[in-house]
Amino acid sequence: MPGDLFIFNSLTRKKEKFEPHNPPFVGMYVCGPTVYSDIHLGNVRTFLAFDVVYRYLTYLGYKVRYVRNITDVGHLESDADEGEDKIGKKAKLMNLEPMEVVQKFTNDFHNVLQKFNFLPPNIEPSATGHIIEQIEWVKRLISKGMAYEVNGSVYFEVNNYNKKNHYGVLSGRVVDELMESGRKLDRQEEKKEAIDFALWKKASEGHLMQWNSPWGMGFPGWHLECSVMSTKYLGDRFDIHGGGMDLKFPHHECEIAQSVSVTGKTPAKYWIHTNMLTVNGQKMSKSLGNSFLPEELFQGSHQLLDQPYSPMTVRFFMLQSHYSSTLDFSNVALKAAIKGYKKLINGLRIIQEMQYETPDVGSPVNEELVIQIRKNIDSCHEAMNDNFNTALTIGHLFTLLKRINALHNGVLPFSEVGAETFKKLKETYINFIVNVLGLKEEKPENISQFLLSLIELYKDAKFNRQYEKVDKIRASLKASGIVLKDMKTGIDWAYEE
Amino acid sequence: MPGDLFIFNSLTRKKEKFEPHNPPFVGMYVCGPTVYSDIHLGNVRTFLAFDVVYRYLTYLGYKVRYVRNITDVGHLESDADEGEDKIGKKAKLMNLEPMEVVQKFTNDFHNVLQKFNFLPPNIEPSATGHIIEQIEWVKRLISKGMAYEVNGSVYFEVNNYNKKNHYGVLSGRVVDELMESGRKLDRQEEKKEAIDFALWKKASEGHLMQWNSPWGMGFPGWHLECSVMSTKYLGDRFDIHGGGMDLKFPHHECEIAQSVSVTGKTPAKYWIHTNMLTVNGQKMSKSLGNSFLPEELFQGSHQLLDQPYSPMTVRFFMLQSHYSSTLDFSNVALKAAIKGYKKLINGLRIIQEMQYETPDVGSPVNEELVIQIRKNIDSCHEAMNDNFNTALTIGHLFTLLKRINALHNGVLPFSEVGAETFKKLKETYINFIVNVLGLKEEKPENISQFLLSLIELYKDAKFNRQYEKVDKIRASLKASGIVLKDMKTGIDWAYEE
Repeated sequence: MPGDLFIFNSLTRKKEKFEPHNPPFVGMYVCGPTVYSDIHLGNVRTFLAFDVVYRYLTYLGYKVRYVRNITDVGHLESDADEGEDKIGKKAKLMNLEPMEVVQKFTNDFHNVLQKFNFLPPNIEPSATGHIIEQIEWVKRLISKGMAYEVNGSVYFEVNNYNKKNHYGVLSGRVVDELMESGRKLDRQEEKKEAIDFALWKKASEGHLMQWNSPWGMGFPGWHLECSVMSTKYLGDRFDIHGGGMDLKFPHHECEIAQSVSVTGKTPAKYWIHTNMLTVNGQKMSKSLGNSFLPEELFQGSHQLLDQPYSPMTVRFFMLQSHYSSTLDFSNVALKAAIKGYKKLINGLRIIQEMQYETPDVGSPVNEELVIQIRKNIDSCHEAMNDNFNTALTIGHLFTLLKRINALHNGVLPFSEVGAETFKKLKETYINFIVNVLGLKEEKPENISQFLLSLIELYKDAKFNRQYEKVDKIRASLKASGIVLKDMKTGIDWAYEE
Repeated sequence: MPGDLFIFNSLTRKKEKFEPHNPPFVGMYVCGPTVYSDIHLGNVRTFLAFDVVYRYLTYLGYKVRYVRNITDVGHLESDADEGEDKIGKKAKLMNLEPMEVVQKFTNDFHNVLQKFNFLPPNIEPSATGHIIEQIEWVKRLISKGMAYEVNGSVYFEVNNYNKKNHYGVLSGRVVDELMESGRKLDRQEEKKEAIDFALWKKASEGHLMQWNSPWGMGFPGWHLECSVMSTKYLGDRFDIHGGGMDLKFPHHECEIAQSVSVTGKTPAKYWIHTNMLTVNGQKMSKSLGNSFLPEELFQGSHQLLDQPYSPMTVRFFMLQSHYSSTLDFSNVALKAAIKGYKKLINGLRIIQEMQYETPDVGSPVNEELVIQIRKNIDSCHEAMNDNFNTALTIGHLFTLLKRINALHNGVLPFSEVGAETFKKLKETYINFIVNVLGLKEEKPENISQFLLSLIELYKDAKFNRQYEKVDKIRASLKASGIVLKDMKTGIDWAYEE
């Protein structure tokens, strides 16, 4: 049986035993995308990490409510509450209604994640869907003396919060230093301090998305939605809160400040943050021209890519490193991932079909081997229990794979393994690949290749008057709903009508 | 070139020339599902009709903004503003948070529609995402004297509206009669008249979904969301409003009353309503036990179904009747649809690959034939222009198909058709099947059937020492990433690692 699960908690900076508030229920909130452009690989990596967390917790028997939001308003270009709304700006550029932009990129986002075989979250709430709730929170923050209104906007007063609480508890930032550097910028601002952040912003003339509020027409600040939606669906205290490590500050720090002010509680017990991507050792970024999209990976259509890499190859590739490490993309590493992925999947096909062969009476079990296999199975669990170490887990699965291949080749007799251990081996290998790591077989799509080969062999058999073979080929095609037709121009195929 | 498009307008009960308010832009609003259970076939048929409307308008060059909502709150069990909220009730049954129910059935809904090859709408707004906007509308309806508050609920006063407007304009219902029959029921109600409908309902104790409003905690009435969201995204007057014909009354009638009261305008110019389904001549209904789900059709898993029917077969089948007629499901008709669909798709494969063969100099065009083909091409457009008559269009496509097959068989020389008419024929056939009707090729999924045949032929060739053939088979499999392995137990295949 799997032992205890340990999670590295960004909040305490320690690996801690996972003890949910109300087992077997687990509440997990992950910050989702701002849907104004194509999802980039960094997002994919983050959501993959939490897909695996969700899968493993479910595998362990927890009943997880996984909430991942859609940010469709309020995310401004700059973290300092300045600049245009990202979605509003894109809407103007594309000459679309903002909600058309939201719909388009939400659909694209879902399509990409589906290709990577991500499980959908249980609730996917959107910021615009929770304006009332956000307004209620702003009211409560004002009434608690943590926020102030100025010119139709409302700001969170960090300095005031920090008197009795610790702003910086997650990110390690120091309020005095932040205030000092904020003042140096000497921007003309309506905020009391540059460190204060917007809860509600007054809509300027021509702002596309706005709602009525006690402070006039406006829209919510970006940080507010996550406090509001996480607690609405998971309660004031839930178990896991996650996101990319770039969200630690200011986003998650602000979220904690908001939630502590309103509910008196730090919203989540365990905070998980995923690390960044690099390409050939350099930070992946648009300005460096080394940033490619998932679709470019699938097509191999970026100049830095030698060839296409399938969704499952990329998924496997990402799982080969720990979510808390940087992950470097290179053709060499991706090509190695193709081989690795196919090895695992060939093993999956074999073990799924493999039945235990009952040995002759008296064939003894190899006790030492059984101990090794059992230890190996435990290691898969131990690796996942150690802060979801997928990289290590994959290593242990490859060791199990050697046994599977040996059984398949007949090198290792079933009798040496024994029925019970074989069952355990089979279960573990299938469960970890399919359910925990979320890998699946990618079947060749191009059936016409097979068809053409069969047609050629058919012609050949016909020419040689091997009518039994001719009939066999016809029958096998017919089983797939395909008929062959003798045309003047040669043999043609069609769907059987 | 296609002539004018005519649409049967349920509002005027006439076929009318389509003249959008602001061409080339077209605004279309379709009432979407209440996401508390699996989508049923009646819904599929309705959304298919509008998928084709959307596709054909786009084909004609219109820039369509297609809005289809998600009802995730406020739809009560009874049309008379009574009973539980459908989603809230399901949430209790499933022991889930209401938004989990919404998410699950929204995901399922999207998956089913994707199988049927529906295009996603441009905006898919949800009722819970527009609570503020709905509250604003209630306020405006009260201030216009069209609504009254009682015990924390707000109702639309139909009788008052009907003094200067016509409640019943769409459905043909008569207010006096409705009031008479409403009074006869003699229910204990807080409404002034039974005919009045809820704009905002007070949340009873323990009601799962509720929001703060000027009238206390509550939730919006079902009819309100569509008035609010259609005008928010399409303006006070848009072009097309659609839905199943069961929505005419009360839903669409109430929508018109709300919109006319607030904006002074009938919201949509053209109202389109789709007809019902029957099974073997009987109304499809759960209580009769003759109602099957899309997934049951795909699997053939309902007792009334002889076999599975693929999504494209069902799509084709539904397109074979006009959206305004009842559509009868039977095994005989569905089996005929398999044949018809495959015929069309075989033609599609042929024409997509077919190139015009330049004839010898002096080969004359068959003028009479050319006129026939041209007329046939025009007929495809004329049929669609006649209130989207897909049934007739399919008939004309089958006539075009005969020409395509004749060209393919060599019975009809290309020279008789001529290059220009051939181009037109090819364009029309492909466009109508792929873009207008939204049909696509369903490739056989089971590649292992092909693989096993090839492996058997490989074994055979090897046994007969036909090494050239052996190499060919190996090469063709390798092209699809598959290698053959000689095992003790026989020939095995694996993905090339």
